[in-house]
Amino acid sequence: MINNIIFTRDVPDALREKLAVFDSEDIFVLMDEHSREFCATCFDFLTLPEKHWITLPAGESHKSLDSVATIWRVLSEQGARRKSVLVNIGGGVITDLGGFAASCFKRGMHCLNIPTTLLAQVDASVGGKTGFDFMGLKNEIGTFSIPDGVIIDNRFLATLPKRQLLSGLAEMLKHALLADEEHLAEIMQADLDEVSGEEFFHLIRRSVAIKAAIVQSDPKEKGLRKALNFGHTVGHAIESVAIAKGMEIYHGDAVAYGMIAELYLSVRKMQFDERHYEAIRKFIRERYPIYVPVAVPDKLYELMLHDKKNERTGVNFTLLRRPGEFEIDNYCGREEIVEALKQI
Amino acid sequence: MINNIIFTRDVPDALREKLAVFDSEDIFVLMDEHSREFCATCFDFLTLPEKHWITLPAGESHKSLDSVATIWRVLSEQGARRKSVLVNIGGGVITDLGGFAASCFKRGMHCLNIPTTLLAQVDASVGGKTGFDFMGLKNEIGTFSIPDGVIIDNRFLATLPKRQLLSGLAEMLKHALLADEEHLAEIMQADLDEVSGEEFFHLIRRSVAIKAAIVQSDPKEKGLRKALNFGHTVGHAIESVAIAKGMEIYHGDAVAYGMIAELYLSVRKMQFDERHYEAIRKFIRERYPIYVPVAVPDKLYELMLHDKKNERTGVNFTLLRRPGEFEIDNYCGREEIVEALKQI
Repeated sequence: MINNIIFTRDVPDALREKLAVFDSEDIFVLMDEHSREFCATCFDFLTLPEKHWITLPAGESHKSLDSVATIWRVLSEQGARRKSVLVNIGGGVITDLGGFAASCFKRGMHCLNIPTTLLAQVDASVGGKTGFDFMGLKNEIGTFSIPDGVIIDNRFLATLPKRQLLSGLAEMLKHALLADEEHLAEIMQADLDEVSGEEFFHLIRRSVAIKAAIVQSDPKEKGLRKALNFGHTVGHAIESVAIAKGMEIYHGDAVAYGMIAELYLSVRKMQFDERHYEAIRKFIRERYPIYVPVAVPDKLYELMLHDKKNERTGVNFTLLRRPGEFEIDNYCGREEIVEALKQI
Repeated sequence: MINNIIFTRDVPDALREKLAVFDSEDIFVLMDEHSREFCATCFDFLTLPEKHWITLPAGESHKSLDSVATIWRVLSEQGARRKSVLVNIGGGVITDLGGFAASCFKRGMHCLNIPTTLLAQVDASVGGKTGFDFMGLKNEIGTFSIPDGVIIDNRFLATLPKRQLLSGLAEMLKHALLADEEHLAEIMQADLDEVSGEEFFHLIRRSVAIKAAIVQSDPKEKGLRKALNFGHTVGHAIESVAIAKGMEIYHGDAVAYGMIAELYLSVRKMQFDERHYEAIRKFIRERYPIYVPVAVPDKLYELMLHDKKNERTGVNFTLLRRPGEFEIDNYCGREEIVEALKQI
């Protein structure tokens, strides 16, 4: 078990065990409309007061202070305590929001995450980042807070649309790029029609293990953990533009295109193998829908300067020498970044 | 220096040293109308853009989510980063609010506190509790987050009204009760007309040291730190009633009356010396204004059940055997609590 993460094919059993130490009046569940529609039956065994089920509207646009306040309001009204637990069931929006709300409620109540999307299983599940979007900026407000447990079952993925799966696959691709060529090849050959099978479960475990190892070495993102921002410096900017325009965008799509730009910088500055870069670029462009925001390099550059991880003098990238070999804190200037953005 | 706390008679000098590592465009200052009126000249040497001075209305009623959102909005708009710093200048409302805002902004920016009230100097300055009131409950939402530094100068206290000083004195009395008889005698003889003098500065240092020692042994309030809740279980309930009624109440007043009730429980359950109890009760009743909320024991009891630190089966108190000797986690039932409340 890495970082309290439980891989299981019997979620009710794992959850029952985790909840055994709580009074039923201390258990609260957070879902969004989607997870409630597709996953709620799996949690029928929980006999909780109706008001302990908190349901939010689905979508990134609801990853907001309003949603956080809604969660806090219900918890307060229902007399939740420090010894209460919030079980977050859904994608990364739900686990990030619920994780944040729990980490601040009475300065910290218990929290369990059951990620039901591929993205949330391989990414949001590890590392304790919580938060919400604010003033058009992704995860502008948040905490570092490790949940008491994360329960992962890839059979939740069976009902997900392909685009959602691709979003998660982008983070798996990133982890593979940070790990080694062999796993990278596995990921590029993964069959998304079999996401709920045993073989894909193995890929999820491996992907989580890669992230967990990096996070463990640097929980508060002072150094090495920045490697996980590979593809995200550009990716977050793409997402922010999309949010500001009211467009629906998938996190992984933005990261995938972000990786093209950042791999291009790696080619230029770190001698990353060009054929390798071309193969990955092709892989991404064949699978991921292209968004309008990538066509506004100047705007994207401005947003990158706003990124949590950046200095004022330039934008800070993790770049790759080859799969498994990376270097954090590479400052790139406006011109080379704009050139890289044009490759997308 | 305990917990990054600097005692000084030259605040500008201490602050200049602390801020030396920051670009001026990364420095933000939070004040309320009071601290701006009385203390701002002390900070004239800071040449910051006007928009980097954030001013909130004064008073506990503004210790709200709205105020936190205002701080976050300014920080976002002005391009604050993780490497930026928020300097909170004011009473506990400002240091708690600013501390919370900073701890969540981009998952944690830097933070310095300059407490300007006696209460904030001896209490909020130590221990890293941040937060705001929500749904009529005190500090319902918050984090544990130690600031990068706290600068204490008791000459700020010279302009404070007597009632404000008494509020701080209540916490000093509490610390003394948790420490020893000698210091307790010093506090009960302290001259509030000389709060900005050297002798009183010594009392402040001693009070801070007592709290710091307790906090250090248990930062997340799993055990021993609960001792600091002495007087607060009842005190918070009194405050909550007052907030709900829209009354202006001082934290220390509520704690002072809370201590009477909790000392009474100590007499009954822990053989705390009755004459000692009577002397302290007299000390408090002679100095502190009495509030309407203490006359509603049933309501107070209900609120105590809501307290962060309580079980559902009863209310959890720290009780004293004698000054310096306390026991945490004493559960008391409704009847004995109501009886104690009647002693106030």
